[in-house]
Amino acid sequence: MRSFGSDNHAGIHPDVLAAIAAANVGDHVAYGDDPLTAAAEELFRQHFGPHARPYFVFNGTAANVLGLQSVLRPYQAVICAAAAHISTDECGAPERFLGSKLIDVPTPDAKLTVAAIDAVASGWGDQHHVQPRAVSITQSTELGTRYSLDEVAAIADWVHAHDMVLHVDGARLANAAAGLGVDLAAVSTGCGVDVLSFGGTKNGGLGAEAVVVLRPGLADDFKFLRKQGMQLASKMRYAAAQFSALLTDDLWRRNAEHSNRMAQRLAAAVSDVDGVRVTQPVQANAVFAIVPPAAVPVLQAEYPFYVWDQRTSEVRWMTSFDTGEADVDGFAAAIRRVVGALAPADRTAGELSGAVHFGRR
Amino acid sequence: MRSFGSDNHAGIHPDVLAAIAAANVGDHVAYGDDPLTAAAEELFRQHFGPHARPYFVFNGTAANVLGLQSVLRPYQAVICAAAAHISTDECGAPERFLGSKLIDVPTPDAKLTVAAIDAVASGWGDQHHVQPRAVSITQSTELGTRYSLDEVAAIADWVHAHDMVLHVDGARLANAAAGLGVDLAAVSTGCGVDVLSFGGTKNGGLGAEAVVVLRPGLADDFKFLRKQGMQLASKMRYAAAQFSALLTDDLWRRNAEHSNRMAQRLAAAVSDVDGVRVTQPVQANAVFAIVPPAAVPVLQAEYPFYVWDQRTSEVRWMTSFDTGEADVDGFAAAIRRVVGALAPADRTAGELSGAVHFGRR
Amino acid sequence: MRSFGSDNHAGIHPDVLAAIAAANVGDHVAYGDDPLTAAAEELFRQHFGPHARPYFVFNGTAANVLGLQSVLRPYQAVICAAAAHISTDECGAPERFLGSKLIDVPTPDAKLTVAAIDAVASGWGDQHHVQPRAVSITQSTELGTRYSLDEVAAIADWVHAHDMVLHVDGARLANAAAGLGVDLAAVSTGCGVDVLSFGGTKNGGLGAEAVVVLRPGLADDFKFLRKQGMQLASKMRYAAAQFSALLTDDLWRRNAEHSNRMAQRLAAAVSDVDGVRVTQPVQANAVFAIVPPAAVPVLQAEYPFYVWDQRTSEVRWMTSFDTGEADVDGFAAAIRRVVGALAPADRTAGELSGAVHFGRR
Amino acid sequence: MRSFGSDNHAGIHPDVLAAIAAANVGDHVAYGDDPLTAAAEELFRQHFGPHARPYFVFNGTAANVLGLQSVLRPYQAVICAAAAHISTDECGAPERFLGSKLIDVPTPDAKLTVAAIDAVASGWGDQHHVQPRAVSITQSTELGTRYSLDEVAAIADWVHAHDMVLHVDGARLANAAAGLGVDLAAVSTGCGVDVLSFGGTKNGGLGAEAVVVLRPGLADDFKFLRKQGMQLASKMRYAAAQFSALLTDDLWRRNAEHSNRMAQRLAAAVSDVDGVRVTQPVQANAVFAIVPPAAVPVLQAEYPFYVWDQRTSEVRWMTSFDTGEADVDGFAAAIRRVVGALAPADRTAGELSGAVHFGRR
Repeated sequence: MRSFGSDNHAGIHPDVLAAIAAANVGDHVAYGDDPLTAAAEELFRQHFGPHARPYFVFNGTAANVLGLQSVLRPYQAVICAAAAHISTDECGAPERFLGSKLIDVPTPDAKLTVAAIDAVASGWGDQHHVQPRAVSITQSTELGTRYSLDEVAAIADWVHAHDMVLHVDGARLANAAAGLGVDLAAVSTGCGVDVLSFGGTKNGGLGAEAVVVLRPGLADDFKFLRKQGMQLASKMRYAAAQFSALLTDDLWRRNAEHSNRMAQRLAAAVSDVDGVRVTQPVQANAVFAIVPPAAVPVLQAEYPFYVWDQRTSEVRWMTSFDTGEADVDGFAAAIRRVVGALAPADRTAGELSGAVHFGRR
Repeated sequence: MRSFGSDNHAGIHPDVLAAIAAANVGDHVAYGDDPLTAAAEELFRQHFGPHARPYFVFNGTAANVLGLQSVLRPYQAVICAAAAHISTDECGAPERFLGSKLIDVPTPDAKLTVAAIDAVASGWGDQHHVQPRAVSITQSTELGTRYSLDEVAAIADWVHAHDMVLHVDGARLANAAAGLGVDLAAVSTGCGVDVLSFGGTKNGGLGAEAVVVLRPGLADDFKFLRKQGMQLASKMRYAAAQFSALLTDDLWRRNAEHSNRMAQRLAAAVSDVDGVRVTQPVQANAVFAIVPPAAVPVLQAEYPFYVWDQRTSEVRWMTSFDTGEADVDGFAAAIRRVVGALAPADRTAGELSGAVHFGRR
Repeated sequence: MRSFGSDNHAGIHPDVLAAIAAANVGDHVAYGDDPLTAAAEELFRQHFGPHARPYFVFNGTAANVLGLQSVLRPYQAVICAAAAHISTDECGAPERFLGSKLIDVPTPDAKLTVAAIDAVASGWGDQHHVQPRAVSITQSTELGTRYSLDEVAAIADWVHAHDMVLHVDGARLANAAAGLGVDLAAVSTGCGVDVLSFGGTKNGGLGAEAVVVLRPGLADDFKFLRKQGMQLASKMRYAAAQFSALLTDDLWRRNAEHSNRMAQRLAAAVSDVDGVRVTQPVQANAVFAIVPPAAVPVLQAEYPFYVWDQRTSEVRWMTSFDTGEADVDGFAAAIRRVVGALAPADRTAGELSGAVHFGRR
Repeated sequence: MRSFGSDNHAGIHPDVLAAIAAANVGDHVAYGDDPLTAAAEELFRQHFGPHARPYFVFNGTAANVLGLQSVLRPYQAVICAAAAHISTDECGAPERFLGSKLIDVPTPDAKLTVAAIDAVASGWGDQHHVQPRAVSITQSTELGTRYSLDEVAAIADWVHAHDMVLHVDGARLANAAAGLGVDLAAVSTGCGVDVLSFGGTKNGGLGAEAVVVLRPGLADDFKFLRKQGMQLASKMRYAAAQFSALLTDDLWRRNAEHSNRMAQRLAAAVSDVDGVRVTQPVQANAVFAIVPPAAVPVLQAEYPFYVWDQRTSEVRWMTSFDTGEADVDGFAAAIRRVVGALAPADRTAGELSGAVHFGRR
């Protein structure tokens, strides 16, 4: 089975699995006080800059929540895009654990802008109003778009001018960096990011994410937040091994470039299919497209994927490090065949059923 | 000084203060196990129905938060208008204490509708998505509008059909009932409300609000939530005395009718002032109006009031039980005089300064 | 009815009620931005020192919880006596709102010592262990005892040497200061207290407590914590008026001295009753005594009071500003009469019934 | 390096690692909706009974906290031994996430008894008092002791008679079952356990724990708690694979029996060393012993282990599935040699240094 449902439908990259096996020698002190963890931390400093302080956690929800908690008091708020994963797909974990309000900003492409942030950032000093403290952006975004380095830097400048903190949900930061053709420091430290969630799982890991504190002096008590936040692994060496594999010989980039390329290939292959319309720029490893509702279940039976918006019959197709060219070509052919077989009237996209947005992760 | 800033700028109604003084005789067991509290609770049952269970708390923030907490688990969400006080003016208390997400719905008049609720209620059963559990409406609303009984009943029907709970922020429920010309049961129990915040403070109290649980079987553990929620008064008799005064001889209605009437009088008096435009139906004790920016500080120096939206120079004028006809007439005359003295070009409303919404409570 | 159940069974001192009535003139801006609040704050600075920053809240639970929250991150812990009100009688409000662990220290007299604190303060830097950050003592204590100024100062020295914060639950600080014969600054600022709950309710108020931040630089964001903590009063002037009354002409001291004297009078009057044994030094306004179980319900029918420990038939008798000499004498006579009427075998204290500690507040 | 520091210093059992590798074929739907997860869940039903509902989480802290959250409202309390891991070694995660108080019971052997529970369970119905709702025991305990089936059943009977819930921290449940010579159902469902944390990590896993809901009708909303609790794995198949390996061909038992046997071997081997005294019954995979302080650092340089109590120089030695007989024999010989080399006066245990308890996990 080859899924276009999510990059977390893929398995573990063989090099990552090999690294886990290689780490499985002898005993090691638990909770991160071991040489494998130290080696992985050193790799983070090489990739993100000498002041980067990485803390490994189990999943993306936790990376985002704990990264934000480290810079927030509960009466302080987070400004994010309305499509941000922290706002839509974490079952309220941020509100539950931060105690803070997320100030959602509607956007067409899941990207914040300085103007959009500025329009909602208000109430400073007013005790009745939550106090804006962090801006959280997702890079690459939930809609497969990405910020340019200048766009991030402009937001960072605004954020810092307001004594706030720039948080990046980088569950797919690798895809953004690969797409931009830059290294990891350039897309984070280099453009003013303060706290980062750096994803390993979707880029070939078994299950490992890192909160990376980039600004010196920030979040010095993070280890306590992680433990109290139920995110301290005992056999830490295996999280470390995953990241060491990804950060060695640029495996992170090779995986990301490949999945990005597969998304481009898929978008190109369906670009001339009558009844299919790609809706977002394909800048990472996702293709968003409106397809005829009647085609959706037929295609899903062969290739799993999610409907993003039932009202418009917009779907999301994700690629990953293990998506092959033949997989893409087979899927594209199936789309062409199934949509082409519809009566012309059915080829017009419209309501699938129900009425509600149904985002998937 | 006569303020049009808020109905909580008023003092204590003389009858309420007299009731406090009358309660100040001898010793009484604390925390609500006293005859004065029992008497007030009986009055609530008379006004709201025999199944009404009132719990006195200190302020409106707490009434709303604890009322909602009593029916929510943290992964469950609250649907409310974007203008709802719980969303905008409680410094994140709901998120902090409930751990829940508020799903905000933009509306022109601060009123939810079944259609608007239905459009955002989604994700049931999806573990990634907060689970809609309560709808919270404000009656009368933050914009001085009110729901008809049919409108509330329609929402209640939808809510109950979805196994949800209807919560009403009734900090100004008295103004709504008075405006509708109905009793308190009609505007709550009678149209399907499950949990209610019933405000005493803004209607002539010193400081007392009640969470009233109306649906049998709901919130049976409320007393623990109140204590743990830091809202259990020791000398409960004085909260009880305030409510007993308000619920005796319909003082609640007389106060509310008066303040409603003063708002109507003010709106009427400025309706023909060139440069002033009333923006919302005046259905309770608030008048919202766009006035020339240049007139605002001049008027505020004499009569305190708040700017609601700096971008449009929309202001809010609140009346209360102690607003006199002469106060209204004097204020209206001042508005006419100050706006009239402006050059015609300055009489056109526009940007005050800054760019952000600046709601007041 | 005259109660020995609690000092919060008393009503409002006439001077306090008069101050509330006097404050009930005209309109005032809400939420503390009014001249009556400013005047009360100035009185706090006169009594507690020029750096004292008072914040009025509704009750003692909130004063303690918010005062502690202002100096804690959730992974930091509070060291307190096992008998501390925050640990036993607030229905878990500290754990709920702080997210922090309370480290309880068993003590015979509800008083912490440097040695006892030192024995449990541990784990600094260990991510598995909560990090001790505050020591909370109650002055006067839940057992009617009090700390000497030297005892508090010694604890403060230890606390500050460990980069921690000294919090005082002063719901009955007035009784301690009156008993020690010192002013309020001496018993707080003067012996190194950093954050204080100063009680008004039990000393003749209607319902008002103050969090007083004494150490400069601490808790500068308290106003947001108070609002988000559901403790911001709209008609703040009435809380202010209560404190202004208590802090004018030393009403706080007169009330406290009186209630302390009544406790002394009661203890003296029962000291020679066979079968009654006073168990704690009477240093404030409480008398703890072991009485024959058979006498308890008979006495309670006439004078309400609480059993403190059912296992030992230890009871608590509280006096207040409104306890008269005749009340004390009548109660003492009743004790002598009821206990004296028991058969000698029944005069020996023992199990009342049940087996559990049953603290009262 | 061979560590006696903790069973989480060991690596992954080869069969578990092989199962992870075997699961790494093709794509699978994420978040548990895959056949490998279904297969693991079926194995849980075979081992724990047909009503067992397992939910995989990342670590033991989370398993305990979420298992307890599923049966608690925040004002409800947990009764546990003072030595319980949830109370001492989770950096306050239970208080933070549950909002609940833990009622600690001092015990000599980390085991609760009905009498000890009964002595602290009180305050039902009293709004000032947290409401006891769960009893949490650890099986095997933090001190390497274990409950008999009858002891657990007696606690379960008491718990259920009080309408409460019995929670078991079974991070080392395998060691208890192996030591008792019974199967997993016997030590859980069979003796009345309602909610269980079943540990995989310390028994040869990479990192996987399961919350197992055993009582029908309880915790039906667990999936939302897990997601909001930041504990939902995307690539769930790998957690499932770990448990499938452990629950196949009784690997769980073989690993546990081995580590138990190694602890017995170690205890026996040092039983006649002058200056060493084993302090707890060796009923699982831990040996607690008092050793001369001077010997500790010398031994630790060769074999890592933790000091449990610095005041008494009591140490903890843990064994695991990968501890070899030669490892044990070598360590025992080192103990004999190092302690034997001390002057007789130094062989008497006493203060190591410092004064505080220093538990390790």
